[in-house]
Amino acid sequence: MSGIDWELPSLVGELRSTRERWRKARDRNLNARVREFPSQEVLQNVASALAAVLFPMRLGPADLNPETEDFYIGHTLSGALDDLLEQARLELCYAKQYGLECGTCDEKDVVNIIKQFAAELPAIRTKLDTDVEAAYRGDPAARSMDEVVLCYPGLRAIIYHRMAHALFRLGLPLLARIIAEDAHSQTGIDIHPGAQIGGSFFIDHGTGVVIGETCIIGERVRIYQAVTLGARRFVTDEQGDLKKGIARHPIVEDDVVIYAGATILGRITIGKGSTIGGNVWLTHSVPEGSQISQAAEQVNKPLP
Amino acid sequence: MSGIDWELPSLVGELRSTRERWRKARDRNLNARVREFPSQEVLQNVASALAAVLFPMRLGPADLNPETEDFYIGHTLSGALDDLLEQARLELCYAKQYGLECGTCDEKDVVNIIKQFAAELPAIRTKLDTDVEAAYRGDPAARSMDEVVLCYPGLRAIIYHRMAHALFRLGLPLLARIIAEDAHSQTGIDIHPGAQIGGSFFIDHGTGVVIGETCIIGERVRIYQAVTLGARRFVTDEQGDLKKGIARHPIVEDDVVIYAGATILGRITIGKGSTIGGNVWLTHSVPEGSQISQAAEQVNKPLP
Amino acid sequence: MSGIDWELPSLVGELRSTRERWRKARDRNLNARVREFPSQEVLQNVASALAAVLFPMRLGPADLNPETEDFYIGHTLSGALDDLLEQARLELCYAKQYGLECGTCDEKDVVNIIKQFAAELPAIRTKLDTDVEAAYRGDPAARSMDEVVLCYPGLRAIIYHRMAHALFRLGLPLLARIIAEDAHSQTGIDIHPGAQIGGSFFIDHGTGVVIGETCIIGERVRIYQAVTLGARRFVTDEQGDLKKGIARHPIVEDDVVIYAGATILGRITIGKGSTIGGNVWLTHSVPEGSQISQAAEQVNKPLP
Amino acid sequence: MSGIDWELPSLVGELRSTRERWRKARDRNLNARVREFPSQEVLQNVASALAAVLFPMRLGPADLNPETEDFYIGHTLSGALDDLLEQARLELCYAKQYGLECGTCDEKDVVNIIKQFAAELPAIRTKLDTDVEAAYRGDPAARSMDEVVLCYPGLRAIIYHRMAHALFRLGLPLLARIIAEDAHSQTGIDIHPGAQIGGSFFIDHGTGVVIGETCIIGERVRIYQAVTLGARRFVTDEQGDLKKGIARHPIVEDDVVIYAGATILGRITIGKGSTIGGNVWLTHSVPEGSQISQAAEQVNKPLP
Amino acid sequence: MSGIDWELPSLVGELRSTRERWRKARDRNLNARVREFPSQEVLQNVASALAAVLFPMRLGPADLNPETEDFYIGHTLSGALDDLLEQARLELCYAKQYGLECGTCDEKDVVNIIKQFAAELPAIRTKLDTDVEAAYRGDPAARSMDEVVLCYPGLRAIIYHRMAHALFRLGLPLLARIIAEDAHSQTGIDIHPGAQIGGSFFIDHGTGVVIGETCIIGERVRIYQAVTLGARRFVTDEQGDLKKGIARHPIVEDDVVIYAGATILGRITIGKGSTIGGNVWLTHSVPEGSQISQAAEQVNKPLP
Amino acid sequence: MSGIDWELPSLVGELRSTRERWRKARDRNLNARVREFPSQEVLQNVASALAAVLFPMRLGPADLNPETEDFYIGHTLSGALDDLLEQARLELCYAKQYGLECGTCDEKDVVNIIKQFAAELPAIRTKLDTDVEAAYRGDPAARSMDEVVLCYPGLRAIIYHRMAHALFRLGLPLLARIIAEDAHSQTGIDIHPGAQIGGSFFIDHGTGVVIGETCIIGERVRIYQAVTLGARRFVTDEQGDLKKGIARHPIVEDDVVIYAGATILGRITIGKGSTIGGNVWLTHSVPEGSQISQAAEQVNKPLP
Repeated sequence: MSGIDWELPSLVGELRSTRERWRKARDRNLNARVREFPSQEVLQNVASALAAVLFPMRLGPADLNPETEDFYIGHTLSGALDDLLEQARLELCYAKQYGLECGTCDEKDVVNIIKQFAAELPAIRTKLDTDVEAAYRGDPAARSMDEVVLCYPGLRAIIYHRMAHALFRLGLPLLARIIAEDAHSQTGIDIHPGAQIGGSFFIDHGTGVVIGETCIIGERVRIYQAVTLGARRFVTDEQGDLKKGIARHPIVEDDVVIYAGATILGRITIGKGSTIGGNVWLTHSVPEGSQISQAAEQVNKPLP
Repeated sequence: MSGIDWELPSLVGELRSTRERWRKARDRNLNARVREFPSQEVLQNVASALAAVLFPMRLGPADLNPETEDFYIGHTLSGALDDLLEQARLELCYAKQYGLECGTCDEKDVVNIIKQFAAELPAIRTKLDTDVEAAYRGDPAARSMDEVVLCYPGLRAIIYHRMAHALFRLGLPLLARIIAEDAHSQTGIDIHPGAQIGGSFFIDHGTGVVIGETCIIGERVRIYQAVTLGARRFVTDEQGDLKKGIARHPIVEDDVVIYAGATILGRITIGKGSTIGGNVWLTHSVPEGSQISQAAEQVNKPLP
Repeated sequence: MSGIDWELPSLVGELRSTRERWRKARDRNLNARVREFPSQEVLQNVASALAAVLFPMRLGPADLNPETEDFYIGHTLSGALDDLLEQARLELCYAKQYGLECGTCDEKDVVNIIKQFAAELPAIRTKLDTDVEAAYRGDPAARSMDEVVLCYPGLRAIIYHRMAHALFRLGLPLLARIIAEDAHSQTGIDIHPGAQIGGSFFIDHGTGVVIGETCIIGERVRIYQAVTLGARRFVTDEQGDLKKGIARHPIVEDDVVIYAGATILGRITIGKGSTIGGNVWLTHSVPEGSQISQAAEQVNKPLP
Repeated sequence: MSGIDWELPSLVGELRSTRERWRKARDRNLNARVREFPSQEVLQNVASALAAVLFPMRLGPADLNPETEDFYIGHTLSGALDDLLEQARLELCYAKQYGLECGTCDEKDVVNIIKQFAAELPAIRTKLDTDVEAAYRGDPAARSMDEVVLCYPGLRAIIYHRMAHALFRLGLPLLARIIAEDAHSQTGIDIHPGAQIGGSFFIDHGTGVVIGETCIIGERVRIYQAVTLGARRFVTDEQGDLKKGIARHPIVEDDVVIYAGATILGRITIGKGSTIGGNVWLTHSVPEGSQISQAAEQVNKPLP
Repeated sequence: MSGIDWELPSLVGELRSTRERWRKARDRNLNARVREFPSQEVLQNVASALAAVLFPMRLGPADLNPETEDFYIGHTLSGALDDLLEQARLELCYAKQYGLECGTCDEKDVVNIIKQFAAELPAIRTKLDTDVEAAYRGDPAARSMDEVVLCYPGLRAIIYHRMAHALFRLGLPLLARIIAEDAHSQTGIDIHPGAQIGGSFFIDHGTGVVIGETCIIGERVRIYQAVTLGARRFVTDEQGDLKKGIARHPIVEDDVVIYAGATILGRITIGKGSTIGGNVWLTHSVPEGSQISQAAEQVNKPLP
Repeated sequence: MSGIDWELPSLVGELRSTRERWRKARDRNLNARVREFPSQEVLQNVASALAAVLFPMRLGPADLNPETEDFYIGHTLSGALDDLLEQARLELCYAKQYGLECGTCDEKDVVNIIKQFAAELPAIRTKLDTDVEAAYRGDPAARSMDEVVLCYPGLRAIIYHRMAHALFRLGLPLLARIIAEDAHSQTGIDIHPGAQIGGSFFIDHGTGVVIGETCIIGERVRIYQAVTLGARRFVTDEQGDLKKGIARHPIVEDDVVIYAGATILGRITIGKGSTIGGNVWLTHSVPEGSQISQAAEQVNKPLP
């Protein structure tokens, strides 16, 4: 402790004033007494626990064995679903309070949402198995599928995405987003939970990949680091406010490969089996089997 | 424990020799008895505590409510400022010991520096409020401003930057840098604490963004992932050593938008209201209202 | 706790079925009773401990001083090598069980591998000293070498790489990979542990850098964020499976500089002293002293 | 992990059977889905937080100073009272479910109980100040009052007792008991929360002291280690069950001193100003000013 | 850090000399490379986990419910038995190395010992249920059986004792002792793991109770704080060394009550249904139905 | 969080008033800005670290082996002595501020005190070795000396006492007391740090033992649980205040044994080789070779 007099009462007072100004400007209910928001920390733990439930022998605790897998899964799942339920309630109350569109706040409905989510877990695992296999087959540096599950950031990103997407579809977009941003921070891969992604999906290296909210990605697609599947322009309404929720990101059909740094923008379609070269900038649809590369040449001359 | 004989005394001895060689080569005072450097871990905690002080109901502990906000802020601020003062002393002593240019080592001055920093916190919060609003208005996927504060890496990066920049201007560049690198590691967004950034600033997605030390960014600027605002070349002095501190990064005027992957280098000016397209490579100034895009075409031909 | 009945027995049963299907499909020994895989968490601790052993006064605990450095190093090294030995055993047993090519499973050999690794640590530190100096000389924003060691993600990435590469060469590619991915997650820099990298190497900013398995990089090379040194195409065998381990990434000779966003693909050679401009896309060798830049122009016209 | 097959399913099944037998034998509602009991861990934290609230500069965090005391107290008190409220609800629900006598389960009443408890805290502190002073004056080994607050187990026991007793009187005997047993475990001093104890109370050394539920202790009483103020016999009802809650422990009037190992049993009265010698066994009342010692002599002869 | 030169090398050297002197004096194998001893910390965790396995809804985690009890128990039991097995190996190796008498060091035998221990757990729980009931019936202050399980130090001591005693009988006296001392430290009740104790056993308050290694205690015995059931004298062999393992502590038959502070020494028998008064000192057997009290009178006279 | 309005500002205000009243009544400097007191938590860690330094293979970390003992000891000792120095400064400043008698506040003197303490550690270990041996020889239940070091509360109490006593003699009575109370809480054994205790000292079981400040205990003394070596009466000065520091506790000569529950009070001498029986109450000196037992008989009659 320093013993310095920091003049805290005055500092604290000024900070309170700035908060009050902000809240007043936004018509916040200044008398709301509770903190009505889901918790990042809880959701990080939930996501990590569910990943371990899906791959217990690889992402679960080191002391697991086949005899005890099911005990571990049952115990972990129970806690994770309880926590998720609590967070879901917080999201729905928040949405209600601020007039956001949301399905329901009815307690029985909330429980059903989480039950539906739980019921999807086995299918999520089955789909993830195809992703693991795709990574193993797609990367000459992969020595085993277990290495893929344990080490590949692309696999971690898709595990989290498939869970987040299920929550998004069930009407919990905020929980989904918090989980997606956790994966983003860990891997540098930013997949919006709204994106629809088929099986056998493989992202290699991954840093800087961005996949937008309304993307639709087919089966067996492979993409590399720094690829953007983004929006080209935003539609505004008559007040000049952004229209939210409009389909504005690419459709990528089955068996497409997109190399590092390519930028693909707008509601365009990349036809089945196409290959998009590195650093390509693409804002129009291309037919099945296209092979797009950058026309630009490099020149050997002194850098300016 | 393994019980293996690792021949530690000899290993430890060799490691000591390599350290001594390095220190001798650099004229280090081999008898210096204390570790004269600020601590990453302490500063990470300070930055995280101050972020909670700025946004107590969103980044503070879950059990806060309006009645207890001020108690929490006063208590947290007191500890964070004490810790920051201690780290500031370490930076200034270090600078003195190695002959780096620095304002002061006088105890009273150090306390005043931290007091000035504390006094700026309310203004920082007010500026951050404009950033929150800019993110909400600039991203169709944002459903509420609270989501922005809690989930957006771009917002976290700018919270940390505005604190780091204040420390930088007050003569604590090393503390500022450590805080900036903490944000970099969390978000993939690398903003040098020296950069001057106006209000209503929004970085979307963010991974791979680099903003250099002498950048000047105006009001209402929006940038996307993998944008670089960098230096074009380095100026060397007559000994061939780099000249440090020279203005070498872009000036970005008000209301500019810069899309993903654009690289803007050198002390050039991007005129007010301009739009820079994705992947653009720009090394010369452009006037107000410019709309710059890549001339290069894409071709559909077999990849080489 | 929620008191909700999640129908766990049925959920747990379904999850078990999906796992069994996967394991059966891959001929996994369903009765294997032990978890035969190295642990990410243990290896993260080992890597962090060894980094502190290499730079005790900067990356070790705050309360170290020259008198106690050696005590700290001896104690820490002992624990880290014991843990590494245990992980090495796990990797080799795993490799054996799944028929992966590996040097040995003989207990005496394993101990010797770790002893050789330990014996390389002083040389690794000496090489890292050249990297620290290169960063300091290469970045006008660096105020001291200590700042480089403590703050620069590029330095952290190369510390981890030099350790991981030693493990890779000694026949422990999986441990090496896990350590490399830890650095990737912290820094956004993805260096495959197989890459050979000379002294005085400097990566600035770093987010999005990818360096492939068979890269060979000379002395005094400098690269910037988002540079890819990748493979151009993959060679398949007669069954259509990828051939693993073939030289497929660039050779970068001494004194080369590669600016942000450049993509260099295939087993090509960048001649000594060359400079590769930002965003360049390069798939053919260039001779000594080349200065490659993008031919593409930017145009000032309304964005499409 | 051992890889041993522990035959868990059968073990788990047997343990379940033993639990079910117990629950059935006691008519437990086998379908109760929630764990309806207060938590030892939460209450330990509450008690420790409230002790710090009462003596912030001695039992609070090391970095407190007079400027920040109130911030700390407000923040800590808020969390502790919230937690206590939650535990109070658990106790009252539990009591209701098992038909124990209890005041109320009405939410508003519960809040009022905790508010009353909070309102008593200043008076508790004032009374504890007399205890601190009594310890300082009563022990020649005490060098300062701060030493008493920080080091004396007897003081810790009385801090916890005064809080527990307030909860006991307000109708929360189970919370009170859990807090009392926490003090017992820390200090070896076992004071039932029902005991009524006047000001300036001092227990020296303390290990083995037992003070029963219906004791009434006056002002300025001093007792030493291993003193028991217990019940002499238990009254049973016509079914042979113990009658609970009957006055059965001693009344100790003002200014009494009781030396180590004395055992005083039953609803007797130790008159004002009396002194009870060490190891004395007393089961009848003694008048004011008594000085009771053991009649037994010691003999110097070979031990049997 | 202080920067003081503590002259560590010389201090460390002197401490080494004292250790070497001790080891040499005791013929310790100075080259033994491993730490051959069970771990207090691991065993504390094992004991705490097994207590939770026995009483999951009271001593297990707060978020348990009947649906998840078995998952929790299976998972926890698996880890606890693995850890216990490892500790058992350490004890047996230690015993072998120092020539202590011990059953076996054969790996298969060790596993069987732990399996037998596990198989006894259901019977231990059933016996503990009688203890819980005895405490409830024996203490007018007990309001419910759950309060007994959660709060009573006497119950905690007997839970630990029944586990420790099982280990003791199975040939693991050191593990048993470590667990017993953990209970002693928590409760002030010191029961040697060798003691044989019947069902419906109740210790009230408990601080200072000592129960010796060869005690035999019947059914429905009740004892109070500071009771000693000890040895009267030690038998030495012809070298004057203590004979270890000889029956030297009391036999207490069914339905005996022993009040606070009574000291009962030697291989004597307290007959069925007897009552021993407080502070009584007893070194000879007493027949069934005895009621022993102290003859000594108290006198009211000035304390010497 | 509850959202209840606890009326904190008024509560906090009342608590502040009670503190101010107390401080004013005691002439406390109300403007003192720093917390001038040693920290229990720091000293608990110091004591535990030093115990591990004294017995590294038994009380140190599990992964130690003879090769790494010295590294561990050097590193641990360095941190512990630094921490102890800081606490010593706090004690001396506190003593100065409150006018307590104390040796010095001069920085150089403080460092010397801690250096002297460090220099005594080897001798302390040597003396403790005799205690270990005494416990092993004195308890038929002890199977090995390692068991004594690891499990016996009496040994832990004497380890802590010998360190605390060294600090006491060097002029740091408060640090000594805090360490002694830590041992008291762990073991139930309360030894004042001022007590002088010879080698080969053994306390069995230990709960409830109290040894006063001015006791002098010879070589090879053995005592059992609940023994008190206390003061008989306190001497007051002319103002009626206790005289502090006067010799008022027993002298116990070599080879004395004192059985459980004996109470020995006042500055009396227990002659060499004497045996004091259980529960004996002794307030006068006894010559060499005495065998003191309680004259009191037990009677078999109905308890009153």
